[in-house]
Amino acid sequence: MKEIYFDNSATTKISAKALEKYKIISETLYANPASLHKAGFNAEKEIDIARKTVMKALGAKNEKEIIFTSGGTESDNIAILGSVLARHREGKHIITSKTEHHAVLDCFKFLESRGYEVTYLNVDKTGIIDIEQLKNSVRDDTILISVMAMNNETGIVQPINQIKELAKNATLHTDAVQAFGKLDLIKINADLISVSAHKVHGPKGVGALYIKSGTKIKNTVFGGGQEWNLRSGTLNVPGICAFGCAVEELIAEFEYNNNKFTELYDYFVKRLTEIEDVVFNSYVQGNIINVSFVGIRGEVLLHYLEEKNIYISTGSACNAKSTKISYVLDAMNIDKTVAEGAVRISLSKYNSVDEIDCVVEEIKKGVELLRKFKRR
Amino acid sequence: MKEIYFDNSATTKISAKALEKYKIISETLYANPASLHKAGFNAEKEIDIARKTVMKALGAKNEKEIIFTSGGTESDNIAILGSVLARHREGKHIITSKTEHHAVLDCFKFLESRGYEVTYLNVDKTGIIDIEQLKNSVRDDTILISVMAMNNETGIVQPINQIKELAKNATLHTDAVQAFGKLDLIKINADLISVSAHKVHGPKGVGALYIKSGTKIKNTVFGGGQEWNLRSGTLNVPGICAFGCAVEELIAEFEYNNNKFTELYDYFVKRLTEIEDVVFNSYVQGNIINVSFVGIRGEVLLHYLEEKNIYISTGSACNAKSTKISYVLDAMNIDKTVAEGAVRISLSKYNSVDEIDCVVEEIKKGVELLRKFKRR
Repeated sequence: MKEIYFDNSATTKISAKALEKYKIISETLYANPASLHKAGFNAEKEIDIARKTVMKALGAKNEKEIIFTSGGTESDNIAILGSVLARHREGKHIITSKTEHHAVLDCFKFLESRGYEVTYLNVDKTGIIDIEQLKNSVRDDTILISVMAMNNETGIVQPINQIKELAKNATLHTDAVQAFGKLDLIKINADLISVSAHKVHGPKGVGALYIKSGTKIKNTVFGGGQEWNLRSGTLNVPGICAFGCAVEELIAEFEYNNNKFTELYDYFVKRLTEIEDVVFNSYVQGNIINVSFVGIRGEVLLHYLEEKNIYISTGSACNAKSTKISYVLDAMNIDKTVAEGAVRISLSKYNSVDEIDCVVEEIKKGVELLRKFKRR
Repeated sequence: MKEIYFDNSATTKISAKALEKYKIISETLYANPASLHKAGFNAEKEIDIARKTVMKALGAKNEKEIIFTSGGTESDNIAILGSVLARHREGKHIITSKTEHHAVLDCFKFLESRGYEVTYLNVDKTGIIDIEQLKNSVRDDTILISVMAMNNETGIVQPINQIKELAKNATLHTDAVQAFGKLDLIKINADLISVSAHKVHGPKGVGALYIKSGTKIKNTVFGGGQEWNLRSGTLNVPGICAFGCAVEELIAEFEYNNNKFTELYDYFVKRLTEIEDVVFNSYVQGNIINVSFVGIRGEVLLHYLEEKNIYISTGSACNAKSTKISYVLDAMNIDKTVAEGAVRISLSKYNSVDEIDCVVEEIKKGVELLRKFKRR
């Protein structure tokens, strides 16, 4: 039975071109780019090409504004902990939102345990942060604000540029891991932007952090001093080059992909409304559909569908093994029984209308069966 | 002109099998192992296989003793900073040696700047740490000792098991990035052992940390809670599986490779002694020859050889772009003019006697030419 993969917010399949790039670079340019010799220099040149591509996608003006990391989580950690380490003498107040990814939220919890004062912004029922609360929270000693560009469970888009205007002296970081490829990040005005390769058909284990020139940041990883001393460790040359390749594709296909997402999204939503008692937990034309079928636990439906080789998720992959209801939906004040039923269906450029038809038919059967089962 | 690569301590070429594994896993098991569905579970199963292989190579008794990281530097950082974070209430004294890799040394310098008292052990002229100094340094409030298993510039092997006996309450970490594949790490008695994939014909961007059961350690990376919360971030499934594959090969070929290293080492050294005024800066039958041709700067010889497509290094790759003499050779009290001439030739299983003959002939020509040039 053919596999149908609708869990693209958890991770995407690496593109054929990016994988081929990984292979070729591994075979031909395996030297350490930190080495003094020509082989090292040739590897470094390929890194430079990838860096220029990522610069283009994130709107960076010079190469020092992009550092390569091991992924979105590391980018978030370096951005948040590195900013605070650089600015800790200027203030002890930091701000984030209640619906951040754990890679952000848990950095803030750690900092809170170390004596920092944290404001966790509320979100409204659509998932958008409380701008009034932000206005009232920002102080002269607020050194950092971190709000994600697009939520990984709901697809909700946060008003980063508006936050920037209200940020006073604070450094503004945005986790754009989910937004990358869906929003045009050039238009986002933040000091620090985290992205990950494996969410955009690049390889796992690679990410990047945009650091606007002039942003105060200190290294939190110690070693050989790579990436302007902000991310020590031998550069993952083939991984970074494959990432560069995936980003090249992303830039070229940006409009096409987003039109496709909108089309698939609309079609998917329309077809899902054929099912009785369906509740959409967010509504943002993008690649994420967060939906509940009342009375059916998300996890149960997920396992029903996996038997048909259809893969979706409940919440984010990182919290998938937690049995609690999503803290993101909880912050949106979504009814507990609805939130328990939430599943996340996330699209990629590789999905098709036929796949949607197939999945909707299976969901229909599953929902009917599971509801019957429940009534007995 | 064929390339001859003798810079295997900087990085090695990924093996054909490991690269093939990377490709297959990328194409077939691309789901997030944290996902609840079968596709995620299947990816997780492959991670388990790789983990078992690494367990075998490092002598781990249960799977929680191995965490996968993004490389040797991250392993060192997690080991050192994580230990200190876990034990900071027990003491403020930590010990390392003067000849550690920067990934260790710079963690200690950071901790020193944060109020920790650091003892930097001296080494003797062969590069071995001063055991008497260690004995006299270890106190009841010493919480961490970190000494590398094998030096990355000289190949010197440190007496880790002897250090363990003297460690009292301290956690013992060893950076075994260079030792992996050359020493049998099962025989090394340390609480924490760092290794890297790309030094053993695995992929770049992957490493592991052995954490003996019962060792106190806290997470220094915050996020989704992967790897028993010690290394958050989506697992690099294809990279880790390729690493597992490389380690499988390493285990199978261990004796053969090491016999080959000894044979190639002896032959290389013998042939190099044909050159006038040659000084060996260390002498350990392994894969590293650290040698000086008096009167010729290492960097000059390196660039002479790269023109012949022969790649060697001065010092470690991470310090390659520094023009200062090696701090490792300096700590060994090696004469400054000799240290300035140091080059590191590092072997891999792919090297051959023919390559050595070719390199020695080129070094002979180069040394003769460069010395003539110098005399004028």
